[in-house]
Amino acid sequence: MNAILIKHGTIVTASETFQGDLLIEGERIALIGQNLSHPSAEVIDARGKLIMPGGIDPHTHFDLEMFDTVSSDDHYTGHKAAAFGGTTTVMDFVVQNPGSTFQRDVDIWRRKAEKAAIDYSFHMNLTRFDPQVAADIPSLVEMGITTLKVFTAYNGRLRLDDASIFRALRIAKEHGMLVMLHAENGDVIEVLVEEALAAGHTEPVWHALTRPPQGAAEAILRVAGMAAVAEAPLYVVHMNTAGGVDMLQYARQHGYPVMGETCPQYLFFTIEHLRRPDGAKWICSPPMRTAADNARLWEALEQNIIQTVGTDHCPFFYDGTTPILYEGQPVAIPGKELGAHDFTKIPNGLPGVQDRMPVLWTEGVVKGRITPNQFVAYTSTNAAKIFGLYPRKGALLPGSDADIVIWDPEKQVEYGVKHSQQRTDYNLYENWRLTGYPEKVFLRGRLIVENERWLGHRGMGQFIKRHAGEVL
Amino acid sequence: MNAILIKHGTIVTASETFQGDLLIEGERIALIGQNLSHPSAEVIDARGKLIMPGGIDPHTHFDLEMFDTVSSDDHYTGHKAAAFGGTTTVMDFVVQNPGSTFQRDVDIWRRKAEKAAIDYSFHMNLTRFDPQVAADIPSLVEMGITTLKVFTAYNGRLRLDDASIFRALRIAKEHGMLVMLHAENGDVIEVLVEEALAAGHTEPVWHALTRPPQGAAEAILRVAGMAAVAEAPLYVVHMNTAGGVDMLQYARQHGYPVMGETCPQYLFFTIEHLRRPDGAKWICSPPMRTAADNARLWEALEQNIIQTVGTDHCPFFYDGTTPILYEGQPVAIPGKELGAHDFTKIPNGLPGVQDRMPVLWTEGVVKGRITPNQFVAYTSTNAAKIFGLYPRKGALLPGSDADIVIWDPEKQVEYGVKHSQQRTDYNLYENWRLTGYPEKVFLRGRLIVENERWLGHRGMGQFIKRHAGEVL
Amino acid sequence: MNAILIKHGTIVTASETFQGDLLIEGERIALIGQNLSHPSAEVIDARGKLIMPGGIDPHTHFDLEMFDTVSSDDHYTGHKAAAFGGTTTVMDFVVQNPGSTFQRDVDIWRRKAEKAAIDYSFHMNLTRFDPQVAADIPSLVEMGITTLKVFTAYNGRLRLDDASIFRALRIAKEHGMLVMLHAENGDVIEVLVEEALAAGHTEPVWHALTRPPQGAAEAILRVAGMAAVAEAPLYVVHMNTAGGVDMLQYARQHGYPVMGETCPQYLFFTIEHLRRPDGAKWICSPPMRTAADNARLWEALEQNIIQTVGTDHCPFFYDGTTPILYEGQPVAIPGKELGAHDFTKIPNGLPGVQDRMPVLWTEGVVKGRITPNQFVAYTSTNAAKIFGLYPRKGALLPGSDADIVIWDPEKQVEYGVKHSQQRTDYNLYENWRLTGYPEKVFLRGRLIVENERWLGHRGMGQFIKRHAGEVL
Amino acid sequence: MNAILIKHGTIVTASETFQGDLLIEGERIALIGQNLSHPSAEVIDARGKLIMPGGIDPHTHFDLEMFDTVSSDDHYTGHKAAAFGGTTTVMDFVVQNPGSTFQRDVDIWRRKAEKAAIDYSFHMNLTRFDPQVAADIPSLVEMGITTLKVFTAYNGRLRLDDASIFRALRIAKEHGMLVMLHAENGDVIEVLVEEALAAGHTEPVWHALTRPPQGAAEAILRVAGMAAVAEAPLYVVHMNTAGGVDMLQYARQHGYPVMGETCPQYLFFTIEHLRRPDGAKWICSPPMRTAADNARLWEALEQNIIQTVGTDHCPFFYDGTTPILYEGQPVAIPGKELGAHDFTKIPNGLPGVQDRMPVLWTEGVVKGRITPNQFVAYTSTNAAKIFGLYPRKGALLPGSDADIVIWDPEKQVEYGVKHSQQRTDYNLYENWRLTGYPEKVFLRGRLIVENERWLGHRGMGQFIKRHAGEVL
Repeated sequence: MNAILIKHGTIVTASETFQGDLLIEGERIALIGQNLSHPSAEVIDARGKLIMPGGIDPHTHFDLEMFDTVSSDDHYTGHKAAAFGGTTTVMDFVVQNPGSTFQRDVDIWRRKAEKAAIDYSFHMNLTRFDPQVAADIPSLVEMGITTLKVFTAYNGRLRLDDASIFRALRIAKEHGMLVMLHAENGDVIEVLVEEALAAGHTEPVWHALTRPPQGAAEAILRVAGMAAVAEAPLYVVHMNTAGGVDMLQYARQHGYPVMGETCPQYLFFTIEHLRRPDGAKWICSPPMRTAADNARLWEALEQNIIQTVGTDHCPFFYDGTTPILYEGQPVAIPGKELGAHDFTKIPNGLPGVQDRMPVLWTEGVVKGRITPNQFVAYTSTNAAKIFGLYPRKGALLPGSDADIVIWDPEKQVEYGVKHSQQRTDYNLYENWRLTGYPEKVFLRGRLIVENERWLGHRGMGQFIKRHAGEVL
Repeated sequence: MNAILIKHGTIVTASETFQGDLLIEGERIALIGQNLSHPSAEVIDARGKLIMPGGIDPHTHFDLEMFDTVSSDDHYTGHKAAAFGGTTTVMDFVVQNPGSTFQRDVDIWRRKAEKAAIDYSFHMNLTRFDPQVAADIPSLVEMGITTLKVFTAYNGRLRLDDASIFRALRIAKEHGMLVMLHAENGDVIEVLVEEALAAGHTEPVWHALTRPPQGAAEAILRVAGMAAVAEAPLYVVHMNTAGGVDMLQYARQHGYPVMGETCPQYLFFTIEHLRRPDGAKWICSPPMRTAADNARLWEALEQNIIQTVGTDHCPFFYDGTTPILYEGQPVAIPGKELGAHDFTKIPNGLPGVQDRMPVLWTEGVVKGRITPNQFVAYTSTNAAKIFGLYPRKGALLPGSDADIVIWDPEKQVEYGVKHSQQRTDYNLYENWRLTGYPEKVFLRGRLIVENERWLGHRGMGQFIKRHAGEVL
Repeated sequence: MNAILIKHGTIVTASETFQGDLLIEGERIALIGQNLSHPSAEVIDARGKLIMPGGIDPHTHFDLEMFDTVSSDDHYTGHKAAAFGGTTTVMDFVVQNPGSTFQRDVDIWRRKAEKAAIDYSFHMNLTRFDPQVAADIPSLVEMGITTLKVFTAYNGRLRLDDASIFRALRIAKEHGMLVMLHAENGDVIEVLVEEALAAGHTEPVWHALTRPPQGAAEAILRVAGMAAVAEAPLYVVHMNTAGGVDMLQYARQHGYPVMGETCPQYLFFTIEHLRRPDGAKWICSPPMRTAADNARLWEALEQNIIQTVGTDHCPFFYDGTTPILYEGQPVAIPGKELGAHDFTKIPNGLPGVQDRMPVLWTEGVVKGRITPNQFVAYTSTNAAKIFGLYPRKGALLPGSDADIVIWDPEKQVEYGVKHSQQRTDYNLYENWRLTGYPEKVFLRGRLIVENERWLGHRGMGQFIKRHAGEVL
Repeated sequence: MNAILIKHGTIVTASETFQGDLLIEGERIALIGQNLSHPSAEVIDARGKLIMPGGIDPHTHFDLEMFDTVSSDDHYTGHKAAAFGGTTTVMDFVVQNPGSTFQRDVDIWRRKAEKAAIDYSFHMNLTRFDPQVAADIPSLVEMGITTLKVFTAYNGRLRLDDASIFRALRIAKEHGMLVMLHAENGDVIEVLVEEALAAGHTEPVWHALTRPPQGAAEAILRVAGMAAVAEAPLYVVHMNTAGGVDMLQYARQHGYPVMGETCPQYLFFTIEHLRRPDGAKWICSPPMRTAADNARLWEALEQNIIQTVGTDHCPFFYDGTTPILYEGQPVAIPGKELGAHDFTKIPNGLPGVQDRMPVLWTEGVVKGRITPNQFVAYTSTNAAKIFGLYPRKGALLPGSDADIVIWDPEKQVEYGVKHSQQRTDYNLYENWRLTGYPEKVFLRGRLIVENERWLGHRGMGQFIKRHAGEVL
């Protein structure tokens, strides 16, 4: 059996930091010890480097159709970009099709993902609900999908009413599933969009102005309250407001089984970016807020109020009419220009799956806001525990998959669209100087990234069935 | 002109307590001074007594049809009971009828109220909303009705969706109106009631168990958030939960224009009362909660988090098959027994319009939880300011209506159904010993209550048109 | 008897705003009514003006020796300045002399104040404590002094240890007195000053850097805790930090009998002002903090967390070597220049007794942060209640002293040292544009200020004996 | 080299729970893996058992002279009791002697501890402070003692003034040391004790009544504020009040480098226990409070507000006149009876070093309040990190000392004085039924406890020099 021995590194887990050696045999971690030796293993000297579990991004949207186009990374290009950023597992959302069954919906997504380059799992969007759908939910558990995402916004499209969300929580409780929540107030948004369009407002900033932050706070408290009544866990995706953090904290302090995720974009950017001429680059839902919201989200990470950092990776071209070169081929996919004259037609979404870990390391760890252990918890271990992948993923334990990042804490990178592998024509962190970057990335024991080199390939990623997770 | 000179009393307002004389001329207060004299006035010696503005109960339901019966106090019997308890103005809710106009709806209520014995005003229930209704709202202001009550519960009956509530807030903002909120989560209630009935639960306690307290907290934050976006004031009626107080406080501390009301029943009783054999007596919506909720509501009064104490007076007989004597006549009105075998059929509501001020005085002022000034603010002045009656009502100022209570702080009353004038067969405060009770009550200068004697009469109460109020 | 009838004004009290007439007879308010007439009264038309109770400044230091000089306003010049700003009662602090008795200490201050131009009362500094002092405290009550000020800072000079403060609270409880607290941590200041001087730091900003804000927060909680144990009321003077507000709020929410005062300077200025070349102008104790502290103090006023706004008026010349003209005479008093080379030698204190009400009106009421009723409460009524002057002072009630301000809410003033009557050579609000200013000021029925004219005179102010106050 | 292979157990660390094997070689953990084998190791089958790091009790007082007696466990008997409860490292407090040096003080304690049965380290009490003492502090670091304990109570005995505490924090910052805080208000206690004795109060409950809980809250905020100014870490020992938790949380949320410890006794007992006839059994400092305090402390553990659970083990006999048998010999040591007629003479302290882990497991983990990972963090890992023992102690990592507990989560124990090895005549948890108990305990690779059998011996414990720790 293939063996790799990583020696002399500093092993960093969600709670421990220590000098040690780590032996990989085949696809798994076999041993953790000191002064390990092995008769045949390839030895990697990790002196001065950090050994961390491969990142888990619990929130991606690859190859997702939206507004007459499609998100510009598919399950290969997006996976590859993820890997360069240190992520070895991604969790994508399956679309619930009208008149379909979950089995057929998932099959469609499984086929899209046959080109997978890293390991992956799925969440199921629950955007229609009736007794037949309810009866079909347990079939998801058998398929290894133990999460249901619900929306309190996007009326007439994705939103469920409160009764359906509450029933879904009841079912989730019964079957060991976790409900994930997109928290905004759809009704208020409808009225404000209608008013804005009637008043002739078309600029990107109106995307944010028509989605007031109060909606996030109340929807979190609303569904958290239902979760408390149903005694079912809840996970709030892409938290972007101070008020939302306040309510998550309030709910958790009152013993509600609620957890939260934020994304890097919400830590750095504000509504002011949407006012720029190229403001469409920052259009995603929920939108950017204010510097005070950024600060409160950082506080939430410092104080463990929030449990994970995902990306909501759903990239579009800023200018989809001008091709870029990707693996040597010109590629052009319609993008943000679709909404040039109507903010409601701008495809909603941003790149980020590669940026997540390096940006969070530089801004979080290097700047002293979070510890390396918190970094591992937020980017990997907590997601593994919450989503039922632990200890196979998210852990450096004997028996765990050998998904490992060797992180060079000294490496300096001038980041941006040229450096990134994400298949789009812009990057939110253009010209940011990063300190700390992955040097080597292993997927189940195979080296897939070494500095700038891509050693992985299409189809090597596996679908990972998930079991019930924990409430952190 | 008729003149009355009240001498030597202690005048208590929302912020002042002082020795002074007060001269009434006709229907109004003419002078406040010391050592006043008047050539012809009737002089009342109020030595040892407190002079306070007549109470304003912002929340009553007289003569309201519900569940094959009707609330057992009408606009005469209820007014008379109110007066005995020190209240001289009540505000009742007009039912919005299908296919009607606000003018017709209000006319119905005006006719019901022709028998009024004290002054009164109306709030308008907004339980259907469409463009025509929206267009009709400004007509209410002309009628002197500047308040709209909305419900986030009672699906299919009274509830508006969030979009309609938000539009109503927009309209209210434009026309100087105030939206009042019944805050519960209707959807969750629907599901729980359905489950409870399916499981064969019929007892009164299930009324509370199917209306979880989390719904109050979230609905308050939800609509408060909308109010903040709309920059329109909001008034939360009958607050009954600690979580609701938390959210009211949170919203106010963040500058949202939100105010709150509680009722005496929520300060004293808990879900344990609903578990009693006669638990139906305590059935109202929202329901009684726990001792911790009682305590938090008291804290809200102590710390001025809540602005008013109303009653939600909506009495029913406990045993509507057995007549009681009222003004010498036997009266029987179907009541709580309607729900003997199904908690959803128990008429929702309690007596309280008379009890409010004496009970709050004994439990609040005598026990040192609130000051006499807070008592006046909560039972009278704040409501006058919030609802646009000030300074005509709720104030002891020159020019104000001479609605005055001479309060005997030493009077001992053994309270209960025999003592009360409320037209029903039970009282929540049966056998409570009260200290402090109205001795004389004046309505626009006329003495209508003197100790146990009723000096008022049907039809002497006036409808008071209201203007825009203040945000406290 | 002399009578004045103020007609057609808008009367503003701590909780009411109404149109009314007000009759003064002799030194007192006789009547409040509408359409009042009087056979012989002088009639003042106050149309468009506000009638408010004369201001009470609970915190001044006139003619106070400090650091080889003396505060530059005495009990005449300071009173006169106060009157121009709308204040008709001031409360000054008596120095406790070594080896003296309270009677002798107070006598000294009574003699200093013989030139009083407005009414005044005294607080007693308690800066030494032993059994004899303890036994002497009740004599203060007989002298009409019901307040004791203690310091947790100024080691070896003004500070009492915690045991003495606790004993003082015990005595205060027994005799209906109120303890006032200067809250800083004296020990930490001592160490930091020693370190700063050793390091050669002499600039004004080191005054603030050596008095860390944490000391205010903890000292407030510390003594508030003692007050809770002793069940004795406490009043925290000149609150200047966000942390202090947090602790005041925490203590009040937990039922501790604690109240707080802030001063205008803490609402506007920050440590950055101390870094200016003329930074010594802003030197007072406790010092200016940050914009976040300013904001939290405003929040405390908006939300009634703090009860009063005083001034801590204790002016010094910025350049005491250059005379200014005062009532036509050149005056020069050594001032801030004494500390040109050593921040510890800069006299601690600022002018403010005149500025308080106009500045708070413009910045608080005109800008919508507080209501006119809150303005009256913070500048007058609350102090009267807390310090046992109510309802003689701080109220527009029959029988109250006719200390009245007729306030012109439209008056525009370009403020600054030229406009101010404070006897010093600078003003903190130089070139501020104020909207709203006193037009007429009455002291016990006598007009003492009319626009720019001074109609008062030395010696007309009375010493007011105080009784026990209330806990607000 | 001696080798032990623990197979098939569930390894529980501060953040991970996984199936794995663990190889001990000599005194250290050599390998963690799956399906491990070893040619010569003794194999232990841990199926169904939990493998956890040996407990660290950061707070003991063995062989401590107090009030004409001595704590009844010495460095052998106490260590042995600790080991039976799963604890393999203890940290005891060295007394600072008048006119001594730290070297001599530590030497005395090293000699007392020569009989050590488990590993141990020392904290230094800092109860006198002057320039010479200050200059002597760095010598402690060389001795491997990186912690200084200060007291804000015990005036004239153990207390330092605030200036000395602040200077100590400065020195600690400079030398990588940690200040530990006993937080009460000594002055208030002095006054209250004096009053209580004068009033003839002698019963045990007066011990609590003279030490009001407000003192803990304020002293925590006070010294936390100093720590923030000094940028030096602080660790609050034996937290016992809700207010203290509030202040710890407040300080941490504001970024102050403060941590906290509680002890099991504060989670279960209240002042009511002190009112019992045998109330002296519960006398320790700080004292027991109320059920609300218990609840808030549990909340602090649930929400990671507090970092460690120590014991403050300092046992005395309840009846020191009646010998008990210890290792077959009769032992009697004067105890609580010394204060039979004067609560101030009751020796302050309780047994607990053995009880800590089993009681916390049953009440915390089994009852669902905390997770097994939190249990490990609170009883072992966090103390190791905070006090500079990590990763040698408190961790199950390759290279760590093989201090290991094999925990039987199913074991039922009827607990109490008969079961306990603590050398005293009573137990606080008498007749408590515990679920979960240590089965085997290893100290540096040697089995020292197996169920009821003691396999350790005097002198086998080592003094562990500590380095600088972390702020958690």
